Amino acid sequence: MQRLRQRICEQGLVLSDRVLKVDSFLNHQVDPALISEIGKTMAERYRHEGITKVMTIEASGIHIAFAVASVLGVPFVYGKKKKATTQSDELYRRSVYSYTRQETYEITVSKPFLSVADTVLIVDDILAEGAALNGLIGIVHDAGARLAGVSVVIEKSFQSGRKTLDDAGIPVYALARISKMSPETGVEFVHENDEEAVVR
Amino acid sequence: MQRLRQRICEQGLVLSDRVLKVDSFLNHQVDPALISEIGKTMAERYRHEGITKVMTIEASGIHIAFAVASVLGVPFVYGKKKKATTQSDELYRRSVYSYTRQETYEITVSKPFLSVADTVLIVDDILAEGAALNGLIGIVHDAGARLAGVSVVIEKSFQSGRKTLDDAGIPVYALARISKMSPETGVEFVHENDEEAVVR
Repeated sequence: MQRLRQRICEQGLVLSDRVLKVDSFLNHQVDPALISEIGKTMAERYRHEGITKVMTIEASGIHIAFAVASVLGVPFVYGKKKKATTQSDELYRRSVYSYTRQETYEITVSKPFLSVADTVLIVDDILAEGAALNGLIGIVHDAGARLAGVSVVIEKSFQSGRKTLDDAGIPVYALARISKMSPETGVEFVHENDEEAVVR
Repeated sequence: MQRLRQRICEQGLVLSDRVLKVDSFLNHQVDPALISEIGKTMAERYRHEGITKVMTIEASGIHIAFAVASVLGVPFVYGKKKKATTQSDELYRRSVYSYTRQETYEITVSKPFLSVADTVLIVDDILAEGAALNGLIGIVHDAGARLAGVSVVIEKSFQSGRKTLDDAGIPVYALARISKMSPETGVEFVHENDEEAVVR
């Protein structure tokens, strides 16, 4: 997605060779027009996959999930990082270790919202180590649902998340794949056109 | 909003005279078509207010904010409950006491995303005691921005949040106002038509 890559170059801040700040348009302040285009692009790719549910994790995946689910015409579910007071005890649960925060937390999804009848597309804003995504994939597995794939806005290809998903045979569709970055040289993208990005 | 009230009656679960579970369509599993309609309805009300930014709090306000901001054609910002690793130290901060969780947490917004030049619409899913909303209102105040109003999907009118906002002179637009509820008798709405709901 050319417009997204351009936005990353123009407004993303490379704080180190691992930390990219995109909170002016993606995950703190959000540009709804860009997110809508991202949603359309992701939905287009999965239009013929029989998706019944889009899933994500709170908080920064929620607007992405909304945009994709709107186009596909299906509900979305966001995994919770903290048990809600109104949540029932019938929960799918997975423990997740956050590398950035260096702490373990639990993702939960209420059982009525995910079943063996579902075909799921998981979306999120950024794929780095993929810890939270793998927790959500575990929940889809626990429910006996079919996982159609994982789609992210930005993939940091030099971190381990993409390889872990590849090794598990899970199709990944990333709209912008960053091969390398540094505060001095900025962001470099994986050399590929949009079509090649989805071929594995 | 008739369709919303109907949805609350049909799919909402009244767990006690204070706790309403709407997680099958509003704040865990989400129906994007309903949220889009909610966004259009809220945006319509504020179309001529010169809104430059929609604000909410993670996580369950994010899809509401996206839907409204999309129609108004402005960015939205979600207040964070936990400081992100990429967040700068230039933050607006307010402490919030959560009645449901019985704990205090901090809402933060990065300073570059809110300024004296902004006219803000604050949105959220549910107005109960209004603690988180008041934290966000404090942040809008700290930034010297103009607050056009607060709009929520569901207001539990029997809790203190609405009165606090009324007393502070802040216009509130709630799409469904619940006057009373119990597991035995279900949900009762404030008697008014949609037009009256916004008159204070």
